[in-house]
Amino acid sequence: MRDAFIPPHTLPTVNRQMALVQRPAGTPRASDFECLRGAVPTCGEGGFLVRNLYLSADPAQRGWAADTALTPFGAPMRALAVGIVVDSRDETVVPGDIVYGRFGWQDYAVAGHDDLFSQIRDPQTPISLYAGVLGMPGITAWLALRQLASPCADDLLLVTTAAGAVGSVVGQLARMSGARVVGLTGSDEKAARCVARYGYHQALNYRTGNLAQDLENVAPEGFTIFFDNAGGTIADIALRTMRRHGRIIQCGTAATPAWKPIPTGPRNEREILMRALSWTGFIIFDHRARFPGALEALTAMVLAGQLTHDEEIVSGMDQIATAFEGMMTGRNRGKILAFIGEDRTG
Amino acid sequence: MRDAFIPPHTLPTVNRQMALVQRPAGTPRASDFECLRGAVPTCGEGGFLVRNLYLSADPAQRGWAADTALTPFGAPMRALAVGIVVDSRDETVVPGDIVYGRFGWQDYAVAGHDDLFSQIRDPQTPISLYAGVLGMPGITAWLALRQLASPCADDLLLVTTAAGAVGSVVGQLARMSGARVVGLTGSDEKAARCVARYGYHQALNYRTGNLAQDLENVAPEGFTIFFDNAGGTIADIALRTMRRHGRIIQCGTAATPAWKPIPTGPRNEREILMRALSWTGFIIFDHRARFPGALEALTAMVLAGQLTHDEEIVSGMDQIATAFEGMMTGRNRGKILAFIGEDRTG
Repeated sequence: MRDAFIPPHTLPTVNRQMALVQRPAGTPRASDFECLRGAVPTCGEGGFLVRNLYLSADPAQRGWAADTALTPFGAPMRALAVGIVVDSRDETVVPGDIVYGRFGWQDYAVAGHDDLFSQIRDPQTPISLYAGVLGMPGITAWLALRQLASPCADDLLLVTTAAGAVGSVVGQLARMSGARVVGLTGSDEKAARCVARYGYHQALNYRTGNLAQDLENVAPEGFTIFFDNAGGTIADIALRTMRRHGRIIQCGTAATPAWKPIPTGPRNEREILMRALSWTGFIIFDHRARFPGALEALTAMVLAGQLTHDEEIVSGMDQIATAFEGMMTGRNRGKILAFIGEDRTG
Repeated sequence: MRDAFIPPHTLPTVNRQMALVQRPAGTPRASDFECLRGAVPTCGEGGFLVRNLYLSADPAQRGWAADTALTPFGAPMRALAVGIVVDSRDETVVPGDIVYGRFGWQDYAVAGHDDLFSQIRDPQTPISLYAGVLGMPGITAWLALRQLASPCADDLLLVTTAAGAVGSVVGQLARMSGARVVGLTGSDEKAARCVARYGYHQALNYRTGNLAQDLENVAPEGFTIFFDNAGGTIADIALRTMRRHGRIIQCGTAATPAWKPIPTGPRNEREILMRALSWTGFIIFDHRARFPGALEALTAMVLAGQLTHDEEIVSGMDQIATAFEGMMTGRNRGKILAFIGEDRTG
């Protein structure tokens, strides 16, 4: 963790943008992007100008990159970022405010309230955290778990992408609630980290062994909650280990790289029926009104040292696409960010 | 509708049982059963002896017949029935009580409280209704709709097997709640009946036309509630017409005749996620505590003439398996029952 807040006196005079130049077939690769250069934009009536400091790489971007409407060629990749407001025509946002939102993979963004995820006047933590444990991943974990799962001491919870930015917070919050928590992840190293750093009671590497048998051994009476960020074959197996009246929270579909054509899998409606399961999708942007409360609660936990959070911060805009690709193939060890606030005036 | 209550003075002296003699590959056929004859059983400590009058045929029996533990060869087919108590060692159940429960396809059953679905001391309606609109189908519709869907005037509801014993009650209850209700069924005749008799605003025959396009035309903004008794391809298409935050109630899987091996279909987890759907299974036997309240409410509606209900009553035990097969292939026009209370003493 480092505090890389950069005062705005070294503002670059060019707006670099990582733009998609080739539609990815599945997970975008670094070669699908090109760094374009343009003029620094100016903010219009009601908007504000953000100087991005940390570009974020999030799993949702795979879907965004596949969507021709969301991600046109030549425009900066749709992305979350943490930045500082350097100009504003909006009286509720003032220069110097730290903001986190949908500002794109670029140096500058002209943004409005719809793009804003959170606005922090007096940061109490390193500002990179506003894209991670205090950003979309952490707030997703907090809200989805509380609204759709409400785990308590009776619960046995299974989490996929257990070492990821969302999963690692889900695991910790669920454990604090008294539940027994099992993580699924893609390597022995990450499984060990789930237990050692994030407090999972157990964690399994789904790539080795027999997953159905392993889950049966870990939960002979079945899981009561399945917090799923993966979908795919792993989820098909996990769904068949659910206890009756179990709850499934669908928070991501990381296991499936492309949805055109629609991939097939075993039919699940009979499991939903016979186990009387409840399977609910969670989209964080539907819950904007609850962001401030979640942010406050998570900040208090981070300041009290109750929430472990890991970051992997690469340096420079040209590294973000490569880092994104690495994350989607499971090579990261924490929330992926690119710091782009380096001094470029020298 | 006829009142076929038969006083117990013509009790047969042989217990006929429709027993499974061949494991069905999908929907059981009449040839999978044989009529066996045995002695009239006597009730033990705490049980009661039921003389069945109406044998019920219900879609759940396809699954029961496929289950070697639930339906062993040579035993009467697991089934619901309406009968009259003729002997009892249970002080809460007395001879003369009309009972509805899991009494099997046979003349007599020795039963206990676990088998009992409802117990009626003073029937206010023809007793056959306790297996239909006032039985598992009607109570399923009532409870599943209220607990999982709570439709109101804002809702646009889609129901599969819309003319069936469950669907026809769902359609009527949903319409009474002010929702707009669309039915899916397997013939033009049934679609017409859905509108004319059960009050659906619209009904579609899924076997003709282009279902995806037809649903889009009927619900350009999407359905808010999908009450699904079918599953399969119909449900895959319907799920993709749901409005965001829609609710799916999985109440049956009539479209799929066999689950070994598990059939495949398009993956649905991304739809659940992106539409933020909630998909919940409903098993009526989980809600026993609520049966009396549901029965009371439904009885009041039937007595007030507010709930249309159709029956197709065949005569004699040897007709029940054929009638079941006809129902599973969509040939029935109401709740299927076999009346077996005929006088066999002459």
